[in-house]
Amino acid sequence: MELWYTEQHTDNVKFSLKVKDHLFTGQSEFQKVDVLDTFEYGRLLTLDGLVMVTDKDEFIYHDMIVHVPMAVNPQIKKVLVIGGGDGGTVRELMRYKSIEHVDMVEIDKMVCDVAREFFPAISCDLDNERVSLYYEDGIKFIKSKKNEYDLIIVDSTDPIGPGEGLFSVEFYTDCFNALTENGILTNQSEGAMYETHAKELVRSHNKIKNIFTISKIYQGNIPTYPSGYWLFGFASKKLDPIKDLQADAWNAFNLKTKYYNTDLHVGAFAIPNFVKETIENGTI
Amino acid sequence: MELWYTEQHTDNVKFSLKVKDHLFTGQSEFQKVDVLDTFEYGRLLTLDGLVMVTDKDEFIYHDMIVHVPMAVNPQIKKVLVIGGGDGGTVRELMRYKSIEHVDMVEIDKMVCDVAREFFPAISCDLDNERVSLYYEDGIKFIKSKKNEYDLIIVDSTDPIGPGEGLFSVEFYTDCFNALTENGILTNQSEGAMYETHAKELVRSHNKIKNIFTISKIYQGNIPTYPSGYWLFGFASKKLDPIKDLQADAWNAFNLKTKYYNTDLHVGAFAIPNFVKETIENGTI
Repeated sequence: MELWYTEQHTDNVKFSLKVKDHLFTGQSEFQKVDVLDTFEYGRLLTLDGLVMVTDKDEFIYHDMIVHVPMAVNPQIKKVLVIGGGDGGTVRELMRYKSIEHVDMVEIDKMVCDVAREFFPAISCDLDNERVSLYYEDGIKFIKSKKNEYDLIIVDSTDPIGPGEGLFSVEFYTDCFNALTENGILTNQSEGAMYETHAKELVRSHNKIKNIFTISKIYQGNIPTYPSGYWLFGFASKKLDPIKDLQADAWNAFNLKTKYYNTDLHVGAFAIPNFVKETIENGTI
Repeated sequence: MELWYTEQHTDNVKFSLKVKDHLFTGQSEFQKVDVLDTFEYGRLLTLDGLVMVTDKDEFIYHDMIVHVPMAVNPQIKKVLVIGGGDGGTVRELMRYKSIEHVDMVEIDKMVCDVAREFFPAISCDLDNERVSLYYEDGIKFIKSKKNEYDLIIVDSTDPIGPGEGLFSVEFYTDCFNALTENGILTNQSEGAMYETHAKELVRSHNKIKNIFTISKIYQGNIPTYPSGYWLFGFASKKLDPIKDLQADAWNAFNLKTKYYNTDLHVGAFAIPNFVKETIENGTI
């Protein structure tokens, strides 16, 4: 008997993966959590039925959300991760010996528990001694923080369900205030190929650009996300992702990465005209 | 009743589009030709059941296979297109008033006929007076040509069926001989995310790099192709796609493009480490 997992990317587009086994299903206080073992992508975590992470392509997402800001400011010492319960973001951060401390705030403990059990290669640094893990609401957590973090990474779900508040003006303002003078915010910013995602991209970009001095969009190829083309936001108080790129300093870290390199960093900000227009127009 | 078209991207991955109508089905001497009207991507042409082109995302493929070489040598005057029966490649070429003549060799007349009937916005320049259209085998056509074309574009199907010979050492050697001193060859080079495509990528790249002085791979985001991440080959006798990029000259053409721009041109050659390794190792 063949089992297939299907994600509805839009009402009119479906993406399906052949499944070996349904390893876990649970309902947390916040969302439905499932783990599948697939033939092509290895293990797959879904939240409310949407792909969050797979063994095969998680390196792309995590490379892009972590190494891009690290190459713009290799002196980053203190980091806040909001969401990111699978642990991939923290794992990439922990490869920098120069990072002193990471606060990670994941609202849903079940995501971390499931990652620890089913995704050992992704969750391996959740209990690193340089990481403080809080099972709390990131929106509340950040309110008391002022001028504290060099980098905030919002590694969230889509702006529906528990992730919704992470796309609000109030939250972005709190991020701005929690960042140091050289502070950078990166976040996953949805896609641009389908209208539903492009609307959210524009909505969040419009908010962020009113709060931060610098606000740019960059791209990555994530085959298990809708259309395979995904966007990230880079916002900062003063550092420009291209002009301030410290390629030599980043290369001196000597990290082996499967996706990211400093040429690709520059290329990631060279977005297609239709995406540029979507963002500049502020409507779709 | 809901109708869905499904393409099997690998044995274990499927991509499905909701269909309004099945507009055409035919069997030519070479392949099965179908046209569907889909909700998300508009009209869709399949050959032997694989997506070739859709109304919604065709601009990405055609921008990348045409404007990349044109920006490296804006003086291109004579072009050979092999395949490309839908007409999108010729349409983009015809936007350059400086191009004097295009020979287009499409083995399957049914593809052009169907494009003329169902894809008027793509096929609009198939009968341009600067285009000579031959319904012949490109492999045979090119044999008699020496030092004649400034650009050859191999706009082919995958290396199975009628497209297979377009991925051979003999054919690439004939392309080399048919090109002028500044000659450039671009071709669609499959993907890198799935093993079946990556194998073909490596196979064709290994052949081309033994024949041409310069041989590079560049990337584009094509959501209806497997994994949404697709690669193109750039080969030439002496022009380098980055060092010889003539951004100002290309911008002076003043073409409005929906995907391509000269920053993206540079970024398209900044490929991820895993693709670089696949190509450099010459095996996967």
